[in-house]
Amino acid sequence: MILELVHIDVLPDHHEQFEQDLATAAATVLPQARGFVEFTPAGWCVERPDVYVFTIGWETLEDHTQGFRDSALFEQWRALIGPHFAQPPVVEHYAR
Amino acid sequence: MILELVHIDVLPDHHEQFEQDLATAAATVLPQARGFVEFTPAGWCVERPDVYVFTIGWETLEDHTQGFRDSALFEQWRALIGPHFAQPPVVEHYAR
Repeated sequence: MILELVHIDVLPDHHEQFEQDLATAAATVLPQARGFVEFTPAGWCVERPDVYVFTIGWETLEDHTQGFRDSALFEQWRALIGPHFAQPPVVEHYAR
Repeated sequence: MILELVHIDVLPDHHEQFEQDLATAAATVLPQARGFVEFTPAGWCVERPDVYVFTIGWETLEDHTQGFRDSALFEQWRALIGPHFAQPPVVEHYAR
Protein backbone atom coordinates (compact mmCIF):
# COMPACT_ATOMS: atom_id res chain seq x y z
CA MET A 1 0.00 0.00 0.00
CA ILE A 2 1.06 3.57 -0.73
CA LEU A 3 0.25 6.18 1.89
CA GLU A 4 -0.56 9.68 0.62
CA LEU A 5 0.21 12.25 3.35
CA VAL A 6 -1.59 15.57 2.87
CA HIS A 7 -0.97 18.87 4.69
CA ILE A 8 -3.62 21.52 4.02
CA ASP A 9 -3.39 25.15 5.14
CA VAL A 10 -7.07 25.98 5.77
CA LEU A 11 -8.57 29.48 5.72
CA PRO A 12 -8.82 30.59 9.38
CA ASP A 13 -12.61 31.05 9.47
CA HIS A 14 -13.29 27.84 7.49
CA HIS A 15 -12.08 25.23 9.98
CA GLU A 16 -15.45 23.80 10.98
CA GLN A 17 -16.88 23.80 7.45
CA PHE A 18 -13.67 22.27 6.09
CA GLU A 19 -13.92 19.36 8.52
CA GLN A 20 -17.56 18.76 7.55
CA ASP A 21 -16.85 18.92 3.81
CA LEU A 22 -13.75 16.73 4.15
CA ALA A 23 -15.79 14.09 5.97
CA THR A 24 -18.44 14.25 3.24
CA ALA A 25 -15.85 14.02 0.45
CA ALA A 26 -14.06 11.13 2.16
CA ALA A 27 -17.31 9.23 2.67
CA THR A 28 -18.86 9.83 -0.75
CA VAL A 29 -16.07 10.41 -3.31
CA LEU A 30 -13.05 8.36 -2.23
CA PRO A 31 -14.81 4.97 -1.98
CA GLN A 32 -15.65 5.24 -5.69
CA ALA A 33 -11.99 5.63 -6.69
CA ARG A 34 -10.10 2.62 -8.03
CA GLY A 35 -7.36 1.50 -5.66
CA PHE A 36 -8.67 3.47 -2.68
CA VAL A 37 -7.90 1.60 0.56
CA GLU A 38 -8.47 3.89 3.55
CA PHE A 39 -8.89 7.49 4.70
CA THR A 40 -7.47 8.57 8.08
CA PRO A 41 -7.85 12.10 9.47
CA ALA A 42 -4.91 13.02 11.75
CA GLY A 43 -6.40 16.39 12.71
CA TRP A 44 -5.19 19.94 13.33
CA CYS A 45 -1.53 20.76 13.86
CA VAL A 46 -0.58 21.94 17.35
CA GLU A 47 2.38 23.99 16.05
CA ARG A 48 0.54 25.46 12.98
CA PRO A 49 -3.12 25.80 13.99
CA ASP A 50 -4.48 26.40 10.46
CA VAL A 51 -2.88 23.22 9.09
CA TYR A 52 -4.89 19.99 8.87
CA VAL A 53 -3.36 16.61 8.04
CA PHE A 54 -4.89 13.44 6.73
CA THR A 55 -3.69 10.30 4.98
CA ILE A 56 -5.17 8.27 2.15
CA GLY A 57 -4.09 4.72 1.46
CA TRP A 58 -3.90 3.57 -2.18
CA GLU A 59 -3.13 0.15 -3.64
CA THR A 60 -0.51 1.70 -5.95
CA LEU A 61 1.07 5.14 -6.47
CA GLU A 62 -0.55 5.37 -9.91
CA ASP A 63 -4.02 4.79 -8.44
CA HIS A 64 -3.59 8.26 -6.93
CA THR A 65 -1.28 10.17 -9.27
CA GLN A 66 -2.91 9.01 -12.51
CA GLY A 67 -6.18 7.21 -11.84
CA PHE A 68 -7.71 9.52 -9.25
CA ARG A 69 -6.15 12.84 -10.24
CA ASP A 70 -7.19 12.43 -13.87
CA SER A 71 -10.74 11.41 -13.01
CA ALA A 72 -14.03 13.26 -12.65
CA LEU A 73 -14.01 12.09 -9.02
CA PHE A 74 -11.05 14.37 -8.36
CA GLU A 75 -13.09 17.34 -9.56
CA GLN A 76 -15.88 16.40 -7.12
CA TRP A 77 -13.32 16.00 -4.31
CA ARG A 78 -11.73 19.39 -4.99
CA ALA A 79 -15.11 21.11 -5.43
CA LEU A 80 -16.01 20.04 -1.90
CA ILE A 81 -12.80 20.87 -0.02
CA GLY A 82 -10.92 23.25 -2.35
CA PRO A 83 -12.87 26.41 -1.35
CA HIS A 84 -11.39 26.13 2.14
CA PHE A 85 -7.71 26.05 1.07
CA ALA A 86 -5.49 29.04 1.96
CA GLN A 87 -2.73 27.53 -0.20
CA PRO A 88 -2.30 24.53 -2.48
CA PRO A 89 -2.02 21.29 -0.44
CA VAL A 90 1.39 19.75 0.26
CA VAL A 91 1.32 16.09 -0.75
CA GLU A 92 3.89 13.31 -0.40
CA HIS A 93 3.70 9.53 -0.76
CA TYR A 94 5.19 6.84 1.48
CA ALA A 95 5.80 3.17 0.89
CA ARG A 96 6.97 0.39 3.18
CA MET B 1 -5.10 11.17 21.41
CA ILE B 2 -2.25 13.30 20.07
CA LEU B 3 -0.49 12.09 16.94
CA GLU B 4 3.23 12.85 16.66
CA LEU B 5 4.28 12.95 12.99
CA VAL B 6 8.01 12.47 12.44
CA HIS B 7 10.02 13.01 9.24
CA ILE B 8 13.60 11.73 9.42
CA ASP B 9 16.26 12.36 6.78
CA VAL B 10 18.31 9.15 6.99
CA LEU B 11 21.94 8.77 5.92
CA PRO B 12 21.88 7.18 2.43
CA ASP B 13 23.83 4.03 3.32
CA HIS B 14 21.98 3.50 6.63
CA HIS B 15 18.47 2.75 5.34
CA GLU B 16 18.34 -0.94 6.21
CA GLN B 17 20.03 -0.58 9.61
CA PHE B 18 17.79 2.40 10.44
CA GLU B 19 14.66 0.33 9.79
CA GLN B 20 15.96 -2.48 11.98
CA ASP B 21 16.95 -0.16 14.83
CA LEU B 22 13.69 1.79 14.59
CA ALA B 23 11.73 -1.45 14.87
CA THR B 24 13.81 -2.45 17.91
CA ALA B 25 13.38 0.96 19.56
CA ALA B 26 9.64 0.99 18.88
CA ALA B 27 9.22 -2.50 20.30
CA THR B 28 11.43 -2.13 23.37
CA VAL B 29 11.55 1.56 24.42
CA LEU B 30 8.19 3.13 23.48
CA PRO B 31 5.96 0.64 25.35
CA GLN B 32 7.69 1.67 28.59
CA ALA B 33 6.79 5.36 28.12
CA ARG B 34 3.85 6.81 30.04
CA GLY B 35 1.02 7.81 27.71
CA PHE B 36 2.33 5.83 24.73
CA VAL B 37 -0.57 4.56 22.61
CA GLU B 38 0.70 3.30 19.27
CA PHE B 39 3.59 3.33 16.80
CA THR B 40 2.87 3.30 13.04
CA PRO B 41 5.61 3.25 10.40
CA ALA B 42 4.49 4.97 7.19
CA GLY B 43 7.68 4.15 5.30
CA TRP B 44 10.03 5.78 2.82
CA CYS B 45 9.05 8.89 0.88
CA VAL B 46 8.59 8.45 -2.87
CA GLU B 47 9.50 12.07 -3.59
CA ARG B 48 12.47 12.27 -1.14
CA PRO B 49 13.98 8.76 -1.02
CA ASP B 50 16.14 9.34 2.09
CA VAL B 51 13.18 10.51 4.18
CA TYR B 52 11.33 8.07 6.44
CA VAL B 53 8.05 8.90 8.18
CA PHE B 54 6.38 7.36 11.20
CA THR B 55 3.74 8.39 13.70
CA ILE B 56 3.49 7.87 17.44
CA GLY B 57 0.19 8.21 19.29
CA TRP B 58 0.27 9.71 22.82
CA GLU B 59 -2.53 10.16 25.33
CA THR B 60 -1.58 13.85 25.77
CA LEU B 61 0.86 16.30 24.16
CA GLU B 62 2.79 16.52 27.44
CA ASP B 63 3.29 12.75 27.53
CA HIS B 64 5.62 13.32 24.56
CA THR B 65 7.00 16.85 24.96
CA GLN B 66 7.68 16.61 28.69
CA GLY B 67 7.31 13.04 29.96
CA PHE B 68 9.13 11.16 27.21
CA ARG B 69 11.61 13.78 26.05
CA ASP B 70 12.82 14.43 29.62
CA SER B 71 13.16 10.73 30.45
CA ALA B 72 16.01 8.25 30.31
CA LEU B 73 13.89 6.33 27.80
CA PHE B 74 14.40 9.15 25.29
CA GLU B 75 18.16 8.71 25.59
CA GLN B 76 17.75 4.98 24.84
CA TRP B 77 15.49 5.80 21.87
CA ARG B 78 17.95 8.31 20.42
CA ALA B 79 20.95 6.06 21.06
CA LEU B 80 19.32 3.42 18.85
CA ILE B 81 18.11 5.53 15.92
CA GLY B 82 20.09 8.81 16.21
CA PRO B 83 23.29 7.49 14.56
CA HIS B 84 21.36 7.13 11.29
CA PHE B 85 20.09 10.74 11.11
CA ALA B 86 21.45 12.98 8.33
CA GLN B 87 19.66 15.95 9.97
CA PRO B 88 17.61 16.56 13.12
CA PRO B 89 14.10 15.06 12.77
CA VAL B 90 11.16 17.25 11.83
CA VAL B 91 8.35 16.72 14.35
CA GLU B 92 4.79 18.06 14.52
CA HIS B 93 1.76 17.09 16.58
CA TYR B 94 -1.85 16.66 15.45
CA ALA B 95 -5.06 16.50 17.43
CA ARG B 96 -8.64 15.76 16.40
